Amino acid sequence: MWRLVTILFLLLNGVCEGGITSSYVRKAAPSIEIPKKKFPPPPGYNAPEQVHITQGDYTGKSMIVSWVTPLEEQPKYVTYWEADEENDNKRNRARSITTTYRYYNYSSDYIHHATIKRLKYNTKYMYVLGKGNCTRKFWFTTPPEVGPDVPYTFGLIGDLGQTQASNQTLEHYLASGKGQTVLFLGDFSYADAHPFHDNEKWDTFGRFIEKSNAYEPWIYCAGNHELDLAPEIGEQVLFKPYKHRYHVPYRASQSTSPLWYSIKRASAHIIVLSSYSAFSIYTPQYRWLKEELPKVNRSETPWLIVLMHSPMYNSNNYHYKEGETMRVVFEPWFVKYKVDLVFAGHVHSYERSERVSNIQYNITEGISSPIKDPSAPVYITIGDGGNIEGIADSFIEHQPSYSAFREASFGHALLEIKNRTHAFYTWHRNQDSMAVSGDTIWFYNRYWFPKEESSSST
Amino acid sequence: MWRLVTILFLLLNGVCEGGITSSYVRKAAPSIEIPKKKFPPPPGYNAPEQVHITQGDYTGKSMIVSWVTPLEEQPKYVTYWEADEENDNKRNRARSITTTYRYYNYSSDYIHHATIKRLKYNTKYMYVLGKGNCTRKFWFTTPPEVGPDVPYTFGLIGDLGQTQASNQTLEHYLASGKGQTVLFLGDFSYADAHPFHDNEKWDTFGRFIEKSNAYEPWIYCAGNHELDLAPEIGEQVLFKPYKHRYHVPYRASQSTSPLWYSIKRASAHIIVLSSYSAFSIYTPQYRWLKEELPKVNRSETPWLIVLMHSPMYNSNNYHYKEGETMRVVFEPWFVKYKVDLVFAGHVHSYERSERVSNIQYNITEGISSPIKDPSAPVYITIGDGGNIEGIADSFIEHQPSYSAFREASFGHALLEIKNRTHAFYTWHRNQDSMAVSGDTIWFYNRYWFPKEESSSST
Ligand SMILES: [Fe+2]
Ligand SMILES: [Fe+2]
Repeated sequence: MWRLVTILFLLLNGVCEGGITSSYVRKAAPSIEIPKKKFPPPPGYNAPEQVHITQGDYTGKSMIVSWVTPLEEQPKYVTYWEADEENDNKRNRARSITTTYRYYNYSSDYIHHATIKRLKYNTKYMYVLGKGNCTRKFWFTTPPEVGPDVPYTFGLIGDLGQTQASNQTLEHYLASGKGQTVLFLGDFSYADAHPFHDNEKWDTFGRFIEKSNAYEPWIYCAGNHELDLAPEIGEQVLFKPYKHRYHVPYRASQSTSPLWYSIKRASAHIIVLSSYSAFSIYTPQYRWLKEELPKVNRSETPWLIVLMHSPMYNSNNYHYKEGETMRVVFEPWFVKYKVDLVFAGHVHSYERSERVSNIQYNITEGISSPIKDPSAPVYITIGDGGNIEGIADSFIEHQPSYSAFREASFGHALLEIKNRTHAFYTWHRNQDSMAVSGDTIWFYNRYWFPKEESSSST
Repeated sequence: MWRLVTILFLLLNGVCEGGITSSYVRKAAPSIEIPKKKFPPPPGYNAPEQVHITQGDYTGKSMIVSWVTPLEEQPKYVTYWEADEENDNKRNRARSITTTYRYYNYSSDYIHHATIKRLKYNTKYMYVLGKGNCTRKFWFTTPPEVGPDVPYTFGLIGDLGQTQASNQTLEHYLASGKGQTVLFLGDFSYADAHPFHDNEKWDTFGRFIEKSNAYEPWIYCAGNHELDLAPEIGEQVLFKPYKHRYHVPYRASQSTSPLWYSIKRASAHIIVLSSYSAFSIYTPQYRWLKEELPKVNRSETPWLIVLMHSPMYNSNNYHYKEGETMRVVFEPWFVKYKVDLVFAGHVHSYERSERVSNIQYNITEGISSPIKDPSAPVYITIGDGGNIEGIADSFIEHQPSYSAFREASFGHALLEIKNRTHAFYTWHRNQDSMAVSGDTIWFYNRYWFPKEESSSST
């Protein structure tokens, strides 16, 4: 009887409601990679390049500054000071650790990582790298102190690559002027799309994103294009280029791997997961997440956000169901701990889910359908940075009920957290002006204000 | 309409048929570990101990011989000869590689691994380790040459540990005298059940199984108790004791990790998988299995057998659904390639499934029930070796339709392959004489004779 009721419920609930499949037809934008020569190194003797920063601790008082130099020689430090401090005596240094790696026939330059500690909150800092007339100067602003009603705006970009479309996406994001930190959803350089995973493409990618990532932190999440597994050329160490080039503060959250970790920033607790590491019960990632989720203090950081590369909810034929293997493990926890938002990349289009869960499945009864659930996250796929592989324009024909809005365009999104209850979210396709958004919704916090949201998607 | 038909089909098919839940009540057998002192090292100066062997190549012409000595000194080789060869000049040597490891406050003795190559098929060999009056002598028989109708008998043991019950299981298996090679389904020593993962328990376990594993190969599959992850005491290298102690010929099957690999033996192609490594798309294990399955030549090795630790089909409340995350990834391949049998451990009881598959799930429609499928494997859980954790005696009350037979007893099984079409399978609970079997079935090969089987379980 219960079974029949469930089935009837599913019949009524399942395919009746309709999400929106945008009728927008993306203008043919080139997915052709920008040639290497368009990303030259900066001029001058041993000039620092590929400068990028990320949060360096658990709460935002540190910054990891990374850069690359052709030679190993000094200076192996970053010099920094408060922007409104004119006194030269107030300049400080943070020393770097330096690493190199080989990948097939490629030898990397010297990759430096310096962690600047004990920063003041909410403060603009200047920093310089290099020396003499090859000195390069940058700046960043630290986040406000962690607190429940601190407004903060995150940019969301995934699957970026280094094509004309990639550049459109990044320029478009920068033009908004709103983003304070980028949540990057994996798939960086697409070096592995080239013979022998041409690692010079990792260098050109580092030069490409410098215009953003040298000035504001990107929170890094690894994608499949970071695996760089190529046993046929003797390369079997997973994530080798990625781990050498992009450091993250994983130890600060008691993680044992840079592939999964968490940070607190402003009013958000951000958890980064690895779709391509082990996550079944007993494994390190599983154990870490099981201990991490109960630690989240929603009175301190109301917004609980998870980043992963492979989406758990996706109605595109590209990569359909690839996220199932992680969903069956972690989804019950996401609902239990009322995760607000789960962002993923990987599928080269845009999709936003309803608040749904699919956790009642018990094998024996066999019922397994996503159902509306106010405690569930919204799942958003932003794999549309614009890489060499092009757009994923093949959605499953009948839009599933879990899918609220989807469109095969390149773009980026902004999440503007206003306070503990409200966050304004907009997705922007590259072809529009920033004033137009392809998908807009006020998100309500699941812990403080678990009301049903309604979107005004176009 | 299709949906309704499916639902009706499931209603009819789903819960109506009944498997057997054995009414046998296991006699209270102790799950108390045998004290260390009951497993003393062999007497004498630097005597070799913990001798164990496994297949050393892809087809059974090599053997890896492993042993442990307290000191590093010579001899670092195994001496071997054909058993019916009296001439001393015919003795050969295979040199060992030697390794040690530290785990918290434990330092291992010297662990030696020697691969004897170019053996003759179907031949008994003698081998000796050590020197002087501490020489120890053993023997093994090589398998017949790989071929489609070669009879061969595998023993099946899982979750063994080193309790009184473990010893019952192993003695019972040995008493049958039928097994030629053990397929071991993971969870070896249960050292991790002791403070600081007391690695002396790895030594006592090695001494315990020597009476079998020095004379016949065990094919090793890693379980969760091999992870030995203990960040709280600084131990973060996964599978450290296991990888040092138990070598497998993974490179022979183009694997890049000892945690997944395959061998051919007699008329069987045996694939070993790792439940606790990454297996989602793009990962090394996924890529390896995807390339491995099409290579299986059923005209050469008709019997396709998969080993893993965590079962995909299990109706015990213990570890219920832990295998789902791998099932959703690999089950479609098991059906496509007509795997005959999937053996797992982990759940400390016995269960045999029907031939079922559950691969039609597409999220949108939501129907996900195991259905009868003649191309599907039978899934067998033999996690009942008898370890310190005791029996898993809590089956889900209404036996699911996918479950054919289940019983909460310790035991082992025998798979007697007769030819390309028929294999006689028996599961033996420890309390019976070997002449009695708790579960018996003739398995028919899925490639050569895909007929429905019927069991004669008691
Ligand atoms: Fe991807
Ligand atoms: Fe286990």
